This record gives sequence, C-alpha cells and structure tokens, in this order.
Amino acid sequence: MNKDHQLSTDPYKGVRDFYPADQFIQSYIFEHMSRTCELFGYEEYNASVMEPTDLYLSKTSSEIINDQSYTFSDRGERSVTLRPEMTPTLARMIAGKSRDIPFPARWYSIPNCFRYERTQKGRLREFWQLNADLLGVSSIEADAEIIALAHAIMRSFGADERNFEIRVSDRRLLDAAYDAIGIDADARADVTRLLDKRDKMEDFDGKLAKVIGNNAQRLVDMLDSTTSTAYLEQLRSQLNAIGVGNMIVDTKIARGFDYYTGMVFEVFDTSGENRRSLFGGGRYDNLTQMFGGEAIPAVGFGMGDVTMRDYLETHNLMPSYVPTTELMLCVVDASAMSHATKLAHDLRLDDVSVAVNFSGKKIGDQIRQADKMKIAYIIAVGEQERNSGQYTIKNLATGHELTTSADKIADHLFSAMG
Amino acid sequence: MNKDHQLSTDPYKGVRDFYPADQFIQSYIFEHMSRTCELFGYEEYNASVMEPTDLYLSKTSSEIINDQSYTFSDRGERSVTLRPEMTPTLARMIAGKSRDIPFPARWYSIPNCFRYERTQKGRLREFWQLNADLLGVSSIEADAEIIALAHAIMRSFGADERNFEIRVSDRRLLDAAYDAIGIDADARADVTRLLDKRDKMEDFDGKLAKVIGNNAQRLVDMLDSTTSTAYLEQLRSQLNAIGVGNMIVDTKIARGFDYYTGMVFEVFDTSGENRRSLFGGGRYDNLTQMFGGEAIPAVGFGMGDVTMRDYLETHNLMPSYVPTTELMLCVVDASAMSHATKLAHDLRLDDVSVAVNFSGKKIGDQIRQADKMKIAYIIAVGEQERNSGQYTIKNLATGHELTTSADKIADHLFSAMG
Repeated sequence: MNKDHQLSTDPYKGVRDFYPADQFIQSYIFEHMSRTCELFGYEEYNASVMEPTDLYLSKTSSEIINDQSYTFSDRGERSVTLRPEMTPTLARMIAGKSRDIPFPARWYSIPNCFRYERTQKGRLREFWQLNADLLGVSSIEADAEIIALAHAIMRSFGADERNFEIRVSDRRLLDAAYDAIGIDADARADVTRLLDKRDKMEDFDGKLAKVIGNNAQRLVDMLDSTTSTAYLEQLRSQLNAIGVGNMIVDTKIARGFDYYTGMVFEVFDTSGENRRSLFGGGRYDNLTQMFGGEAIPAVGFGMGDVTMRDYLETHNLMPSYVPTTELMLCVVDASAMSHATKLAHDLRLDDVSVAVNFSGKKIGDQIRQADKMKIAYIIAVGEQERNSGQYTIKNLATGHELTTSADKIADHLFSAMG
Repeated sequence: MNKDHQLSTDPYKGVRDFYPADQFIQSYIFEHMSRTCELFGYEEYNASVMEPTDLYLSKTSSEIINDQSYTFSDRGERSVTLRPEMTPTLARMIAGKSRDIPFPARWYSIPNCFRYERTQKGRLREFWQLNADLLGVSSIEADAEIIALAHAIMRSFGADERNFEIRVSDRRLLDAAYDAIGIDADARADVTRLLDKRDKMEDFDGKLAKVIGNNAQRLVDMLDSTTSTAYLEQLRSQLNAIGVGNMIVDTKIARGFDYYTGMVFEVFDTSGENRRSLFGGGRYDNLTQMFGGEAIPAVGFGMGDVTMRDYLETHNLMPSYVPTTELMLCVVDASAMSHATKLAHDLRLDDVSVAVNFSGKKIGDQIRQADKMKIAYIIAVGEQERNSGQYTIKNLATGHELTTSADKIADHLFSAMG
C-alpha cells in the first residue's frame, strides 16, 4: 500500500469502537450481569468466537446461518463461522465433558456474537450477549429460577417492575396444536418462526397459508383461544413467591430458534419506546443429543448489550462516567518530575489509582485536563512540596483542599471517597 | 444436515474452550492486568474483533498479514480481517478523535487477537493480549512508566525479580547503523525482522547477506560492538528509582513490527523453561500519521495470556480454583424445595452467592456435589429447618458447623470468610 494513502478512521460497518466513556457503560452492564449471575450460583465460562460451521447447521435458525452468519474458509480449507449465538457452543462444551460435570450445572458467559444484518436500532453486526443456563434439571423450579435471574438483573440496573414485563409461553402448547391439526414435522420449524414474527410481519396470514394451506386459520384460532396452562400458572405462582410480580402469560410468544422444547419467554419494555422484545430464552432439553450423547435438559436465556443500553437510556438508568483514576499528580516544573514519579509509585503501593501528568504544560492546563477527564482529585507537585514533604489534595468538584504528608494521602482519599 | 449425524464436541483447531476452572485462571490473569493498569491511571477501551483489512496493509509485519491473518470477504464484498494485534486499532481510534482526547492519554484493553499459525507451545490461533499504551508524550518518563507498568503486572502475579528480566534496546541504534552503512529504506523492514529472529533462526548470516549482500557482516559487527547508549542508561537509572531492578540493556532486541521508532523491550523468563520472550513493546511515534493527521508519539506493550499462563505454571504461581458460589442449599426432600428457594432469594438480598441443589438426589450426594464443585459451605434444608427457623451452616473443608437463624446466615458467612 502506498504510504501516502489516507486510511479511514472508521471501524468496520455495523460494529462499535468503545472509547473509555463507552467502555465504562459496557463494564457497568457486564459487571451487573456477572454479579447477579454469581449471586444465583452461576460460574463463568468462555470459548472462542470461531466455531466449526457444522455446529450451526442443524439447530440454529436457518435464516441466521444461511443469510446472516459470518462464515469463511480458513487457510487449511476448514469452514469457520463467527458464532451468531452462544447456545450451540455451550451445548458442545457440556456434551464434551458431560461425565465430569456435576449436574445441575449453572453457567454464564458474556460472549460477543456476530450477525451480518442490516444495521438498525437495537441491531448491530457485533453484539455482546449474556448467556445464563441451568443444565441437568427439568423441573419447574429451574424454569422459575432462570426467569427470576433475568428479573434480578433488570432490577440490578434500577429497572422498576412497572417498566418491563416478562411474557411467558410454552412450546408444548405449539406442539399440541401442531399434533391436533396434523402439521407435519418438516413444516413445524417454519411455522414456529412465522409465529415468532407474527406481530412484526405484514401479511402474516398469507405467509402462514403458503406453508400450511387451509390449516393456517385453524392453527391461529386454536392458539388464540388458549390463554394459559396449569404449568404456566404454577410458574407464575412460584415466581410471585420469590418477588417476581411482572410475569404474564402470553401464548403468542414463540421464539425463533428451533431447539426450544418447553417454557419460552421474552422480556418487553412497557414504555412503548422499545417495541421489540429486549431479550428472551427458554427450555431446550434435546440440544446435546446432536453430539451423540444423552439429552441433558437445559433452560437459559440471552440478554444483549445493545438493547439493554437502549433500555437504560429510555428509562434514565445510564450511569455517569467515573474514571478508574482517582488522582492526578500535576507537575509544576520539569525538575519535580522524578519526585512526582516516585510519589506515584508509593501511592500505588497504598492502592491509589494515580496518573502523573507528563505533558510539561502550565499547571492550570494540567488541572483543566484532570477536570476534563473527570478525575476527582489532583495534587500539584513542585519544588515546595518536595522540600516540605507536605502535599495539598484538591477535590476538583468541591474545591475543597487538605494538606498532609505523603504517607497519609491514601487514607485521606479513601475516607473522602467512602 | 442429517439429524443423526454425530457432531464433534471439539472446538475449532488451535483455540480453547474455557470451562469454569479454566475461565477462573483467565479471570485471575485479566483482573491482575486490569487492576495494575488502573493503579497507573490507565482507562479501559475496546473495539470489534473485525477490522477493515486496509488497516493492516501498511504497518503490520507483512508476514503476519500475508501468511497468518484471518481475512475474508463479507456478504457485501468488504475485506474484513480478524485483528492479529491491537495497536493499529488503537491508532485508528486515537487518530479518529485526536481533537477531543486529552493528552497524555493512558489506555488499556485486553482484546482477543487471531493468527493462523502452526499451533505450538505458547502459540495458539486465538489469544488474549493486554495492550497498555501511553499516548501524546515522547519523554523518557513515558518509556520508563510503560516498563514499570509491565514490571508491576509481573510482580502482581507474584513473580520475583530474579525470575524475569526486561531486555531493552532502541530502534534509533538500528537506524543509525542503517544510515552509517547505507542500507536503503526498502530493505530496512526486512533486515529488522531478521534481526528480531536472530537467535531463533538457522543460517542468520546467510539470510541477512541475501538481503544486504556484503553489508551483512559490517552491520552485525557494528551492532554487536554497541553495548548501550546514554538514553538507555538514563532509562535504567529512572527505573531503579521506582523499584525496577531487572532492566538490562540488550542491543540484540529488535521487535518484529515495522512501526517502532525508539525504545523497544522484551521480557524474558530467566528460568530457561520458556526460551522465547514472554512479551514486549516499545515506542512508535508515527503510527497515527497513516490516517492523514499529525504524528502522535506513543509507547506501549502487549502481554499475551498464553505465554503468561505458561510462565505462572513454570514458577508455581497458578492460583487454586475457588468458585464464586459461596453456599449451596441442599434440599432434604421435595416438600422443602419452595422453602429453600425462598431462603436463597433472601440470602441474595444479603449479598450471598448461593446455589439451590435442584437435583432431587439423596442429601449425601448433594453434599458430595458441593464438595466436587469446591463450594465452601452447605446448609441442608428440610422439614426440620422449615419448622424451627434454625439452619446449620457446614464448612466442608473443616467440618465445622454453626446453627443460626436465617437473618444471621450472611453475617456468619462473611465473618468466617473475611
């Protein structure tokens, strides 16, 4: 490449750069997800973004794998896919060590996932997605726990129960209707995917009729006349007992992936600002069978960062940026630089996050920089401080000052910052 | 795909699955890297793994981009590369907002990077790499800080100064030798890359002579007779003053990337177990110019997880696995399940990480499972506990038991674990 050619500073289309203030929001979201999962006894796992393409051919939605995946051949002619979702990876890992893993197992991860989509609100080509899954148990308590965990994460962000609702249904309702009407196995996945997009779709009836002909109207009538089941009512009662008051039964919930076998749910913003579901999940009891082993019952959900960020913005729940750096040492003149560097070294041993200003600019400019970076405290270090051994900590927000010796700086900062 | 086809549970070749015990090690490594960077005033940033291929054509080592990159066309015919290193991304982001960013800027990230390599010890196709960079300042204090940060991270892992050494050189030494001998600009990158691999390479002299003919011997003689410079001695002195005692000058250090312009360093294991360098970095003052803006001086390093893990193993510095789950509630019979679930809910409000055992197995099996998962405490919950409101906390490691009411459980756990 010609060195004079001017490269663009834009990222690849549909993905994001996270400058420190953006990364602060990501970390805030991820830390609340992680901490809540860990309170529920979930342990973190991870895997590569690259997976053999075969992993997705059987059970992931064919729309995603055929039209939206990043799939390519590596230099050894292996077909590689950048994971569009985490559940097949989880099933692969669980199946690979099913004899060594104590069940029930509770696992979580916050992977980045990739879909080649037309970018629009809430949809990007790379997104991060919390995946929390409870494996090895098929009881209703497991379904309730997964929903309670999703609820607890929303609450940890400060979301009020009135501002979101958890709509729950059951794939077994669909299966019973398919059986009753005689919809054959090959058509079921397509029908389920149409039902999943029912409210977002133009000419749903026509499209459904294309797949199952005259049975379309019968199916819709049968589903629409089903308002709940004993199982779903029991689930709601269990959730009420542990503080989850915003689950509603909605038999229109279907979920797009083929692998669900029981309870399915989606969480919606009730404000009307974010019309699509925020996230969802459900029970999938057969997925590990595709690796030839036994079926391991499982229930889980995926919660994406893009929609969650939109939700926090809508409801004024975004945190204010606070840098991890607590203190900047502003250097009055070059001769004090080594003294400032040594002071910073000592403060770090006392667990203070401290940056030394190497700019050589005027002290006022250095303080303005600390303020622009939203660093809470500064100390100006010059000849006078070096000679006296006394340092003045200044709180930039309040203007409050306090003068102390080097060995007391850390204590003062920690007590002030509580 | 035929549903009866049995899929492999192996990950893609050359990448790793992180089961919870493996992820624990990753988190341990990442947390020490992050915490130490933050103590030095570095703020976290991040970006997508996908970058426009153009980003790498000019300044990344041509070996990496031509022979080892994951590069493919997306569905819109854009050429995409999975980042083989983070520095070009950092330069892109800094150049893109150089007017808004207060300099000096201290940034860090722990991205995963990708290289299609023959897998071997210390080399995998996906690795994570801490990148820490100090931008906007060209003074020797910045070079010293970057080396001090690398040193502090090693110390945070428990590494003794005797067990690693920091070998430092300066690209300006090479440039001066190239100028003196008259090696033309086109050959310099190739010569530098050969010098970088000098100790790992067979027939180095022959390969060097192929590029610069008769000048090969003159260059080697000139470099080998240079033992240090005033700059490197001053750097060592500054590092000594802030507790870094294992920097040595080694004019054989070159580094492979084309973009370095000044100080370069590599960190080595002194045990002889890991012969290749553990990690390294250096000064690159011109990289942002490829985006058409001004040159922003910068110095930084990249520290990979694979070699760091090897180092920790070699020196017995690997942490023992401790799950984040503190307590398992073992359920004596099905009738106590809802009581256990409610107790878990209350304990989580008190910040206890608690898993409820949903297995329905015998109580002894449930306790054995907690032990296998290395969970420290269990409480058996049955009819008796429900009626009495008294619960017995058992420490599985010591066998110690303590009986208390529900509202005191959290306090007892925290004081015991404090």
